[in-house]
Amino acid sequence: MNVNFAERAHNHNWKLDPIVRSLLDTDFYKLLMLQFIWKNFPAIPVTSEIYNRTLKVKLAERISAIALREQMEHVRGLRYRRSELVWLAGNTFYGVRQIFQPEFLDWLEHDFRLSDYEIHEHDGQLVIRFSGLWTEVTMWEVYSLAIVSEMKTRAALAELSELELDVLYARAKTRLWDKIEKLRAVEGLRLSDFGTRRRHSFLWQEYAVEALSSALGNRLSGTSNTALAYKHNLEAIGTNAHELPMAMAAMAARGSDQELRTSQYKVLELWQRSYGGELLIALPDTFGTTQFLEGAPDWVAKWTGERVDSKDPFIAGDEYISWLLKHGEDPRKKRLIASDGLDVDTIIRLHEYFNGRIRFSAGWGTLLTNDFRDCHPRGEDTFEPISLVCKVTSADGQPTVKLSDNASKATGPVEEIARYRRVFGSPVLAEEPVLV
Amino acid sequence: MNVNFAERAHNHNWKLDPIVRSLLDTDFYKLLMLQFIWKNFPAIPVTSEIYNRTLKVKLAERISAIALREQMEHVRGLRYRRSELVWLAGNTFYGVRQIFQPEFLDWLEHDFRLSDYEIHEHDGQLVIRFSGLWTEVTMWEVYSLAIVSEMKTRAALAELSELELDVLYARAKTRLWDKIEKLRAVEGLRLSDFGTRRRHSFLWQEYAVEALSSALGNRLSGTSNTALAYKHNLEAIGTNAHELPMAMAAMAARGSDQELRTSQYKVLELWQRSYGGELLIALPDTFGTTQFLEGAPDWVAKWTGERVDSKDPFIAGDEYISWLLKHGEDPRKKRLIASDGLDVDTIIRLHEYFNGRIRFSAGWGTLLTNDFRDCHPRGEDTFEPISLVCKVTSADGQPTVKLSDNASKATGPVEEIARYRRVFGSPVLAEEPVLV
Repeated sequence: MNVNFAERAHNHNWKLDPIVRSLLDTDFYKLLMLQFIWKNFPAIPVTSEIYNRTLKVKLAERISAIALREQMEHVRGLRYRRSELVWLAGNTFYGVRQIFQPEFLDWLEHDFRLSDYEIHEHDGQLVIRFSGLWTEVTMWEVYSLAIVSEMKTRAALAELSELELDVLYARAKTRLWDKIEKLRAVEGLRLSDFGTRRRHSFLWQEYAVEALSSALGNRLSGTSNTALAYKHNLEAIGTNAHELPMAMAAMAARGSDQELRTSQYKVLELWQRSYGGELLIALPDTFGTTQFLEGAPDWVAKWTGERVDSKDPFIAGDEYISWLLKHGEDPRKKRLIASDGLDVDTIIRLHEYFNGRIRFSAGWGTLLTNDFRDCHPRGEDTFEPISLVCKVTSADGQPTVKLSDNASKATGPVEEIARYRRVFGSPVLAEEPVLV
Repeated sequence: MNVNFAERAHNHNWKLDPIVRSLLDTDFYKLLMLQFIWKNFPAIPVTSEIYNRTLKVKLAERISAIALREQMEHVRGLRYRRSELVWLAGNTFYGVRQIFQPEFLDWLEHDFRLSDYEIHEHDGQLVIRFSGLWTEVTMWEVYSLAIVSEMKTRAALAELSELELDVLYARAKTRLWDKIEKLRAVEGLRLSDFGTRRRHSFLWQEYAVEALSSALGNRLSGTSNTALAYKHNLEAIGTNAHELPMAMAAMAARGSDQELRTSQYKVLELWQRSYGGELLIALPDTFGTTQFLEGAPDWVAKWTGERVDSKDPFIAGDEYISWLLKHGEDPRKKRLIASDGLDVDTIIRLHEYFNGRIRFSAGWGTLLTNDFRDCHPRGEDTFEPISLVCKVTSADGQPTVKLSDNASKATGPVEEIARYRRVFGSPVLAEEPVLV
């Protein structure tokens, strides 16, 4: 009697259940960086690559390369919709109107495309390589990470009965809500969702963000996910990533050590020609935070804040505050954003540690949108998040390098890393294990 | 695009969301007792009454008497459906066919009705009194308890947002599943759902029973809920309750103390004329277990087992085993059923304690079907189960009495309790607080 015949037939007709349904389903900083690249480097070819730092998880055994290609081709077939472009053009981001130039939006609508790519299997892993113009390659990062992450989820879901699925989500919701209750008790907290790339699924990220938003109100600054910001009337959050200094360093590496060294500030110079205010957030750890701050021109201290990624955020925050004071800046007017593998307890401790000293906010990622640890109804670990990354590997024919504050996160060819270490110095920190 | 217009309109047209949707939605033992009453006491008038032993919960402030009456009138309008009667006639219960006589089923189909009742408010409580023929009053017990219990649930649900509802059920499912995992680890366990009367809701009981059934397989003996047994192809479980010895004692109390005292065995005599095998389960605690066993005729030791209700089941089980040995019976062939306020840890301890000594099984009630403690998203206690009971208060014009092994569960007029205590003796046990 209650059968919805149309719905039932539709469910059985399903050809592809797309993971990425809109080109806005990406981190907002990718759009800011895309405009930056479109404006400054429209003709530079790059390559980038996805790899899985969690080697014990053999992705190729869980995910079919054919199904992966179908999902990726679906994204390639997407176009920016009129309503999305109108929103990008008319919305206020960080209090600023028209952050996106009309010419850029015009290009997005008519000329934006995603590059070609290759998928290989190697040693049980899936290797996905993108190559093309930087403007064509860059956006793959979040789309493809989110696709691989959700395909891994779907493979694990397929092994569960209906009741087990129910148990899985009940446990994950219970865990999420317990976290939210801890956060709700903290006055003056500020955090954002940074969990797009390694999310359990789009719908789960949406659930988590709605739950956070409903419980925390304006203590949730927003979400990095542009589609969720658009759909749920939230602030889109984010500025820039390692991709920019890595690619600019690779291009500068053709020249002198001095050119290589100053490339990390060239990025900032170019960035502040396009963006201002809350978007002037430096990311100092690409080649080591300490050398970055020591060698930075005075005008860098005028920037609005800093994002800490690979360094212990307590240490990095103190270091940044000292550096600001040395440059005559008031840290209480500056922003400190932490975003590396955070979970609630660390977020709360960081908030308490920096409260009143600097405007701290947390970018809460994988452990917001993909914390299914101990939720599997048969105790398996198939839903555990993995450390999946997508990095630019060459720019204009030159290999890229990242040194990072955590030596275990260094990437690039060995001989190039050696040169970069001569130029930038070696990080003093020991190798720390990478969780997510 | 995906709007189901018919469903949406239907949802908005809703006049009453019935709590009891079938006359089978009752404990199986009520049907066994109904046939017993129909056969032996077709013309005896009785009264019964619902009251709430958890006085701090003011039910009248949460439940509207008008809405309560609507739900009860809905049940009065129900009839046994053909398919339900066919199932009662043709099914095997406890391995026995035709447990229900054709004349009884015929009467159920054509002549069964529910008695009149009155609802009053007193001191913040709802007092519901039923009066009529015993065959008309008896079935109200489970219908009305389940209705009041679910109306209390619905009142609490109405205070939650959609997201909070989601959190509530996620937590309750997580808790339920954690319990099931503990039980799943215990080999040879036997338990049944006894949780109809104080359930959170019909749908939640159904969910809990399906979850148990799927995880425990045949370690779940079945469910006391006849509608769920019918719908999900499970065994219907149960035998008889205090109502029978209480009413028969009240009728005998017109006569001598000796007649009053032997009435507790008269019940058993009558019962074994109708039923055999696994249905020969004595319930010895109505007027005190110890005096019941001491005074019992030898043939009572031939019965299949005993259900422990108000006495500590470890003590009561040992007492029963000793008594069986004294009567030359092998306890390992007998059944011991515990059913009072059990939860997993006690169930497992009881199983381990009696394993190999007697065939133990657990009737798991309120803490299976209504354990929402600490699940409220704002920490309130509105979903906590309460100790709601329905007791026969008079039979054939005589007041009923229950002494029980737990003095705090004694019911009846003070002067009658005094006479019963002279006749049956006083329980030696201290008063124990009643949780559910």
